Amino acid sequence: MSDRFNQWAQAIQLDIEKALSHYLPEEAGSPGQLGLLNQAMRYAVLNGGKRIRPLLVFAAGRLFDAPDTVLMPVACAVEMVHAYSLVHDDMPCMDNDVLRRGKPTVHVQFGEAMALLAGDALQAQAFAVLANAGGDASRNVARTRILAEAAGPAGMCGGQAIDLASIGTTLSYDELEQMDRLKTGAILKAAVLLGALSGRQSPDNRALEALEAYARALGLAYQVVDDILDVTEDTERLGKTAGKDARDDKPTYVSLLGLQESRQLAETLCRQAHDALGPFSAEAQRLHDIADLVVYRKK
Amino acid sequence: MSDRFNQWAQAIQLDIEKALSHYLPEEAGSPGQLGLLNQAMRYAVLNGGKRIRPLLVFAAGRLFDAPDTVLMPVACAVEMVHAYSLVHDDMPCMDNDVLRRGKPTVHVQFGEAMALLAGDALQAQAFAVLANAGGDASRNVARTRILAEAAGPAGMCGGQAIDLASIGTTLSYDELEQMDRLKTGAILKAAVLLGALSGRQSPDNRALEALEAYARALGLAYQVVDDILDVTEDTERLGKTAGKDARDDKPTYVSLLGLQESRQLAETLCRQAHDALGPFSAEAQRLHDIADLVVYRKK
Repeated sequence: MSDRFNQWAQAIQLDIEKALSHYLPEEAGSPGQLGLLNQAMRYAVLNGGKRIRPLLVFAAGRLFDAPDTVLMPVACAVEMVHAYSLVHDDMPCMDNDVLRRGKPTVHVQFGEAMALLAGDALQAQAFAVLANAGGDASRNVARTRILAEAAGPAGMCGGQAIDLASIGTTLSYDELEQMDRLKTGAILKAAVLLGALSGRQSPDNRALEALEAYARALGLAYQVVDDILDVTEDTERLGKTAGKDARDDKPTYVSLLGLQESRQLAETLCRQAHDALGPFSAEAQRLHDIADLVVYRKK
Repeated sequence: MSDRFNQWAQAIQLDIEKALSHYLPEEAGSPGQLGLLNQAMRYAVLNGGKRIRPLLVFAAGRLFDAPDTVLMPVACAVEMVHAYSLVHDDMPCMDNDVLRRGKPTVHVQFGEAMALLAGDALQAQAFAVLANAGGDASRNVARTRILAEAAGPAGMCGGQAIDLASIGTTLSYDELEQMDRLKTGAILKAAVLLGALSGRQSPDNRALEALEAYARALGLAYQVVDDILDVTEDTERLGKTAGKDARDDKPTYVSLLGLQESRQLAETLCRQAHDALGPFSAEAQRLHDIADLVVYRKK
């Protein structure tokens, strides 16, 4: 990753933070409990996270000459879906976790009922922001379809359901890959496609296939690295509870393949992601660098 | 309500049931826990409910020559949002209820984690179905915006947050109305507007204002009657736990105004809903009759 990439990523992260704040409801001026809901939504989304999904939206959008005025709300919508999923995953009936991004989880801070509502409200807000993104209307509809399908039963929620069932069991490599393809892969792929569908130019089939291959490799790499970090890093560095997979007896790439082989797998997937970008030449450097960011991250 | 209205409503209810089944993911063929998620989604939505919101979509759509091919997915999307909100409301951290539509609630039947996921997946599925509804793309975007805003922090979720805070407190009439306008009113109004925005003809401002006035009165009437039924009917007839508002010490129209005055209020609101339909002449008879259905229902 070059200094140039790092500067670009930091600039996007700052802009995204401002835009997210703009697209979330204000705390101030909202009476009582309504203000508390807005506060919980803001707490769940702001001041945290690597913003990988927004970076993907912007990096993919660049390939098709997408204007920032469209990319920004689209990126915020994807991030809101991601943030809502973390709020609900952390709840006592799911992973029961108390720490996220170095802070108490939403249900610890605001109570379970408010965490449930804040997650629900964030998902709705994501689709409102997406609908308001402007640009060509049929593109707008296509983006809603892609994000909704990626978030639903054939995507993220479906992956979570498999995850729930997998506790204490042994999954084959194929089953683990299927789970992660839905659980984390679907939204990462959606981020890439949403960026690509925000441009003045349309991606042709060859470009879409290349982007899907890139996103597929990236999504798996993301999860493999997550599993590695859960074992190798401590809670303070991660900002979330380390060692949780083993504690919860969850099948992971590390439990299936061991640490060494998992690291090799992550590097192989990173190369696959790079190779998939062949058709795009130098314009795709940022997507290339995001794959490095995902694989060589320390939290 | 005429026999003709009843026949129409029953026909729509049957068609909606079939369409909902079509738009929900199949249980069969889905492996393990993914199949269970799909099963929980279907359990939450199918074989139950009065389908008031789909009826509103169809009745409003009729005023603007909307084709059934668009109205059907739109109606299903609204009903899915309603169904997901019931699943989450019934959860232990919210209303903690065990009975809904005469059956065990989703978390009783499938566990809390699965209820959380099924609700989340239903909200996502609603927006996927809406995006796939076809028709003019800019209308499609407008519908997504309306439903998302009605479901979010300035709508249904906001109303729920106020509801949470109101337990054990006394609300003024204005505060109670504000809560209910968000909690139940927002989605009912969205149903009317979504139907109106599915047609070949566009509603003009005067028509939109009339529909909003109708929906506002109907939404409040709906909640006033809900509060009355909670006191006057038994659990078996309601299909959900009766007497719950008093048990949970929730402020309601009945606790604020008494039973007699609440009944008068419901009738006044019903007349207001009827009067609001003035601009539409005979074409609006079905919306007129739905107001009667809402106010004179027994469950």
